Amino acid sequence: MSRPHPIQSVVVIGSGNVATHLAQAFKEKGLSLVQVYSPTAAHAEELARKTGAQPLTRLQQLNTDADLYLISISDDQIQSLSEHLPPLHGIVAHTSGITALAALHRHRRHGVFYPLQTFSKNREVELQNVPFCIEAGDDDTADRLSGLAAQLSSKVYPVSTEKRKQLHLAAVLVNNFPTHLYHLAQTFLEQQELDFDLLRPLITETGAKMLEMDPDQAQTGPARRGDRQALNLHKELLQSQPEILALYELISNQIVRTYHE
Amino acid sequence: MSRPHPIQSVVVIGSGNVATHLAQAFKEKGLSLVQVYSPTAAHAEELARKTGAQPLTRLQQLNTDADLYLISISDDQIQSLSEHLPPLHGIVAHTSGITALAALHRHRRHGVFYPLQTFSKNREVELQNVPFCIEAGDDDTADRLSGLAAQLSSKVYPVSTEKRKQLHLAAVLVNNFPTHLYHLAQTFLEQQELDFDLLRPLITETGAKMLEMDPDQAQTGPARRGDRQALNLHKELLQSQPEILALYELISNQIVRTYHE
Repeated sequence: MSRPHPIQSVVVIGSGNVATHLAQAFKEKGLSLVQVYSPTAAHAEELARKTGAQPLTRLQQLNTDADLYLISISDDQIQSLSEHLPPLHGIVAHTSGITALAALHRHRRHGVFYPLQTFSKNREVELQNVPFCIEAGDDDTADRLSGLAAQLSSKVYPVSTEKRKQLHLAAVLVNNFPTHLYHLAQTFLEQQELDFDLLRPLITETGAKMLEMDPDQAQTGPARRGDRQALNLHKELLQSQPEILALYELISNQIVRTYHE
Repeated sequence: MSRPHPIQSVVVIGSGNVATHLAQAFKEKGLSLVQVYSPTAAHAEELARKTGAQPLTRLQQLNTDADLYLISISDDQIQSLSEHLPPLHGIVAHTSGITALAALHRHRRHGVFYPLQTFSKNREVELQNVPFCIEAGDDDTADRLSGLAAQLSSKVYPVSTEKRKQLHLAAVLVNNFPTHLYHLAQTFLEQQELDFDLLRPLITETGAKMLEMDPDQAQTGPARRGDRQALNLHKELLQSQPEILALYELISNQIVRTYHE
């Protein structure tokens, strides 16, 4: 078997956080960023400036000679956009955790290129440790997408649509839900005229611990200890906070059951 | 007003994570660690080895000449232990987020020395950015405890018992509860034969972001976007996971309400 032809030229469709981080990473690795597409001209131009690509606001002007068309837009728009693309010789892949590979089935070479990480526009992320989940309609496409991911990260895995959806759900549990808890804590502290900055080092350390510890080793606090007195005190403090109280009771009860039953 | 006499000699009562980290930090700053107490000889000896202090398993042998007696034990045992201490000239202080200053009222010089951080025995923590919450029964004691904290950290604040309890509750929201979510994610992934290691970089980055972003800026995901299709898909994936499903519904609904009402 011959070594697959490496991906050298990329069109990025989308201009959000994932599109921006990946486009910049491709550029840094010496790939040719051919075009970047967004229906909003200012967004296309901003990403074009960062990557030296041509900005594009209409898919009719798509360059059809690229090796890869990477679709990084809202999950619910991927299939529809892919069906508006012209016939392409290159690979068409999306970056979504939750969208089936089959959403791109109209394209001969189709795949998934999903980085399991949270991206924000003005914050650099070290891609080297980010898991890239790869799936494709054929082996050659899988090899070429994996080869591209391996230029960015040491963690590249073949992951089926079904497993990727499970990973995406787990990512919601460990990213979106903790972020909501941070938001509740901020709201609560500000009501008490306390500064959320006091919690930032704790939040960061809580996350950093997970690089080397398992959650059940790291768990502490009143519910972990089964300390009813502390739990009741906290519930009293939350009497005027029904939203936080509901979460407090549900999660504390789960922690107590986990470690004391 | 004269400058308060700085704390130079310390007896640490307790041998848990907080006691260990603080005792070692005092030692590094050149303070005299006089004794470390634990009712369990092996624990007292382990911490004594690390700090050069004398190990102590009986409070009757307490050296009564130290500047500070730092009580770092389970919240519900602090008051009772403090009442078994002999009369002391030095300061008696505890490290608890949830225990009232008044628990130590029997001692003439009493205070609170609460580091708002999560400590694990085998993991170093940079104390320099850890907020220390100080409270005391008199101004001189407050000044001396603040002076000691300032040797360890650039963030030293006077915090009343009432405010400290609110901070402690917020700390539970951003530490214990996310850690429970990590645990649920690990359990779920292992049932699907997926490796929790895949999530570790995401967890760490989610926490690291909070050093420079606010939670509502950082929030993403299906509930943030109000993406009903993705939310329903996740709920389907959780049909055989009642514990996670209950949390999923409660938190997702709260996120949807936060950003879409």
